[in-house]
Amino acid sequence: LRSLRKDNTGYDLKHLFIGAEGTLGVITAAVLKLYPRLPHRETALAAMPSADAALELLQIAGRDAGDALTGFELLNRMSIDIAVTHSPEIRDPFGAPHDWYVLIELSGPENGNISETLEGILSGALESGVIDDAVIAASGAQAADLWRIREAVPLSQPAAGASIKHDISVPVSKVPEFLARAQATVEAEMPGIRTVAFGHLGDGNIHFNLSQPEDMEAETYLAEWGRFNRLVHDIVADLGGSFSAEHGIGTLKRGEMERYRPAVELDVMRSLKAALDPKGIMNPGKVL
Amino acid sequence: LRSLRKDNTGYDLKHLFIGAEGTLGVITAAVLKLYPRLPHRETALAAMPSADAALELLQIAGRDAGDALTGFELLNRMSIDIAVTHSPEIRDPFGAPHDWYVLIELSGPENGNISETLEGILSGALESGVIDDAVIAASGAQAADLWRIREAVPLSQPAAGASIKHDISVPVSKVPEFLARAQATVEAEMPGIRTVAFGHLGDGNIHFNLSQPEDMEAETYLAEWGRFNRLVHDIVADLGGSFSAEHGIGTLKRGEMERYRPAVELDVMRSLKAALDPKGIMNPGKVL
Repeated sequence: LRSLRKDNTGYDLKHLFIGAEGTLGVITAAVLKLYPRLPHRETALAAMPSADAALELLQIAGRDAGDALTGFELLNRMSIDIAVTHSPEIRDPFGAPHDWYVLIELSGPENGNISETLEGILSGALESGVIDDAVIAASGAQAADLWRIREAVPLSQPAAGASIKHDISVPVSKVPEFLARAQATVEAEMPGIRTVAFGHLGDGNIHFNLSQPEDMEAETYLAEWGRFNRLVHDIVADLGGSFSAEHGIGTLKRGEMERYRPAVELDVMRSLKAALDPKGIMNPGKVL
Repeated sequence: LRSLRKDNTGYDLKHLFIGAEGTLGVITAAVLKLYPRLPHRETALAAMPSADAALELLQIAGRDAGDALTGFELLNRMSIDIAVTHSPEIRDPFGAPHDWYVLIELSGPENGNISETLEGILSGALESGVIDDAVIAASGAQAADLWRIREAVPLSQPAAGASIKHDISVPVSKVPEFLARAQATVEAEMPGIRTVAFGHLGDGNIHFNLSQPEDMEAETYLAEWGRFNRLVHDIVADLGGSFSAEHGIGTLKRGEMERYRPAVELDVMRSLKAALDPKGIMNPGKVL
């Protein structure tokens, strides 16, 4: 409950409780710092031939926009296909299909120059061949339309059949390698499987969701959940990544904890759990 | 040693070891993320009648510059006096003395507009009476001169006699109240004591250093260290602040830990220490 920006008095108990999923104690109150919402936003959708090109665009945008870069969402072609096919309100804003897309958002103060910055990033990337095409939203309604494409992807997936999901992160520079290896691996294991990959490229966090082949029974497909998790998470581990970037462990991923976190780290976590919850009454059975 | 921006797999061991001052273990390797230095910098020194006005300037600068605001150093008149008196290379850039000063720095990309942003912040603040005067550095050499004033303050203090030091933080909005109460308290206890207050206003972190009265023996003055710490830290605690914002505990501030951190927090910290260092061999005698 301290509202200090700097405090170096003993151990950082706050961060120990954050992400512990209630297994060390119950958070009953918290102090939050609020920031005014930046009033000026610019949004665009860019199309590019590869995930490597998307990473190059991220580097350009980071260099030219700095902290004004507030959104950088990667989408593969299958993500757009599934959104357009199963969500009637979604249109592909480009005339022709592309292999990869990035939804990019800049935010700034009223009198800033983020419009010029965004135009400069995209025109430079077009000239140097990093991207193939781009649309810039000319109004708040058009910006909302672009965001709706991104949001429609996970919402449209159920209509495309059963999916096996992964919430992974790898070092940002290794996202293209992860995507190439993981897609090749799952397609070799099951012809017709559809890789729906999208997420927060700036965080190295990809939702790597696998929709079933069109001609398969959902139940038959979902019986393969564990095997495909293993295939994907082994590649993630090989790249120094995490099998749970955003969504935590709960009970579902306790097995992955055992498999992928080093034994010494699990021992330290168990010591902390025993020290703070010796009776094992705090959210028992979760995380560890 | 993970280089991930997002990872939600179990307890946050990294933050537990950061700031533990080696009492839980020894950090032998770390992964760092490097950012390119922003090439464009603008620096100014503004003068104002009160710490409240400095806080108002911080709010204006935060609103108009956002994350481009990379320096906001508060200095009271005594800080400037001591720097000018005891460091021959330091000049007061203003014709007349002011009660408070802020050294403000904006950083941005090559093609950004931080010059206009800084001019807008300062001219608006002048017109509305928030500040009384300002100088903007017209070159890198002039910017270095302004920073040299700030850096000269702690370096000049030894020449002004012995000092009793405090490295405190309070919620940012309470900095003016802290400064007024603490200065009034120490002056009432010891006429002639000189308050040298400077620091990182955006973090609520003030170096509240008390130089001895000019006519006192250094040894007599330093014998009052503990009593003045108590006076100042009691005000800090009353405002929900910290008695060690930047510099940690070591052995010097263990007594303050006992006095100002709640007993339940100290118990939790001791449990963590016992769990991870049951033999008490990690930097013994420090922090707890």
